[in-house]
Amino acid sequence: MTQTAFLFDLDGTLVDSVYQHVLAWHEALRGEQIDLPVWLIHKRIGMSDGQMIAELLRIYDRVPDTALTERLREGHARAYKTLSETVKPLPGAQALLAHLDTQQIPWAIATSGDRDGAKPNLTALGLDPGTIIMVTRSEARLSKPDPDLFIQAAGRLNVPTGSTIVVGDSEWDMLAAARCGALGVGLLCGGNGGEELQKSGAIRIYDDPAALLANINELAPTTI
Amino acid sequence: MTQTAFLFDLDGTLVDSVYQHVLAWHEALRGEQIDLPVWLIHKRIGMSDGQMIAELLRIYDRVPDTALTERLREGHARAYKTLSETVKPLPGAQALLAHLDTQQIPWAIATSGDRDGAKPNLTALGLDPGTIIMVTRSEARLSKPDPDLFIQAAGRLNVPTGSTIVVGDSEWDMLAAARCGALGVGLLCGGNGGEELQKSGAIRIYDDPAALLANINELAPTTI
Repeated sequence: MTQTAFLFDLDGTLVDSVYQHVLAWHEALRGEQIDLPVWLIHKRIGMSDGQMIAELLRIYDRVPDTALTERLREGHARAYKTLSETVKPLPGAQALLAHLDTQQIPWAIATSGDRDGAKPNLTALGLDPGTIIMVTRSEARLSKPDPDLFIQAAGRLNVPTGSTIVVGDSEWDMLAAARCGALGVGLLCGGNGGEELQKSGAIRIYDDPAALLANINELAPTTI
Repeated sequence: MTQTAFLFDLDGTLVDSVYQHVLAWHEALRGEQIDLPVWLIHKRIGMSDGQMIAELLRIYDRVPDTALTERLREGHARAYKTLSETVKPLPGAQALLAHLDTQQIPWAIATSGDRDGAKPNLTALGLDPGTIIMVTRSEARLSKPDPDLFIQAAGRLNVPTGSTIVVGDSEWDMLAAARCGALGVGLLCGGNGGEELQKSGAIRIYDDPAALLANINELAPTTI
C-alpha cells in the first residue's frame, strides 16, 4: 500500500493572508513609483519575492537590481505588518491537520515565504514551529514554481515526491507539483479561479481546507 | 445598421478599486465580530451593499437587520476612505472611453455603488460627473445581478438593451446583462477568474480596458 503524504502551501491555503500580501506589495511598489494593477500582483502571489518582483517589473521592461528588490521587500514587510493583524486560519485548516495526525498521515508545510513571516501564521493555526516540519524560502535552492521546496519537504518526511499530494491555492503550487511528480490539489480560498488551477494540473479543486477534509477519502482513504 | 452602445461597470472595470473594497468590507465585518474568509467577500463585490451583506451573513444562518447593515456600510465607508487613496484608473480605461467618444459610440456607466463613492473614481478617470451618463445604486430599483441598472443606463442613452454591450469584471455584471438581453464582456482586471465570467454568459473576455480597446473591432467595428 502506498502511504500518501501531504505537502501544504501556507498563505492562501492554510491561512487567510493572500489579500493582505497583495495590498502590502501594491503599497511597496507604489513607494517606488511603480503603479501596477492590483490583480497582476494577486496572480503572482505564491512565487518567491524575488521572482515576483522580476516578473512584475518585466511589464515595464525593467530588470530589478538588488537594491530595488531589497527596498521592495522591506516596504512589503512594513505594510504587511499592519495588514496582517487581520490574518486568521482558513476554515477547516486546523481540523484537516488534526485529522491527518490522527490518521498518522504525514504532512509538511512548504512556503515561498520566510520563517519569520510564517511564525504568526503557525501560531494562528495552533502549531508549534519547533515540532512541525516546514521548509521555507531560505532553505530551498529556488522557490515555486520550481519544485525544490516540495522536494525538500518530501525528503524531510522520508517519502518520494511521487507519493505526495501538494495542496495549494496558486498556479505556482500546481506547476511545482507537476514538476516533481506530485499530485496537485487546488484550493479556491486564495482567490484564484478554478480554471487557472486546473490548467496548471490540479487533479481536484476544493473551496478550502474544510471542503478538502469533507472529501478526504477522495485523496487518502482511511477505511477499506 | 445597429448602433452598438457600451454600458460599463465602474469598480474593477474602469478603476482599480476591487481589492481595496474587499479589505474594507473585511474590516467592517470584523468590527461586528463577523469573521469571513476574504475570498468570499471578493466573489460578491459588484452586488449592492445590501445584497452582499445578506449573502455573506447567510453563511452564518443570519439575516441582517437594518441597524447591522447600516453599521457595516459605515464601517466599510470608513475603512475604504483610507484604502482608496491608492485607487487608479485601470490600464486603457481613459483611452477606451476617448476612442468611443471619437467614434461617436454611446456609452454610460452603471455602478452598484453610490454617487459619492463614484466621484473620486470619475475624477481619476478625468471624467466630469456633470456631463457623463451614469446610473448609481440609488437610482435603480434593485442592483446587480438584477438588470435594472443596465436597463436604466440604456434608457438614458435612448438605445434598447439588446443593442448594448455590458462590460464588467464580475459574474453579477454578466448575469444582469443576460437578463436584459445585453451582451456581456468580461474583464479579468477585477481579479475574478475567466471561467466564472464565461459560465455567467460572457461572450468575450479580456484582461483589462486596454486589451478590450486593442480588440474593439471584435465588438464594435468602425471600418467596413
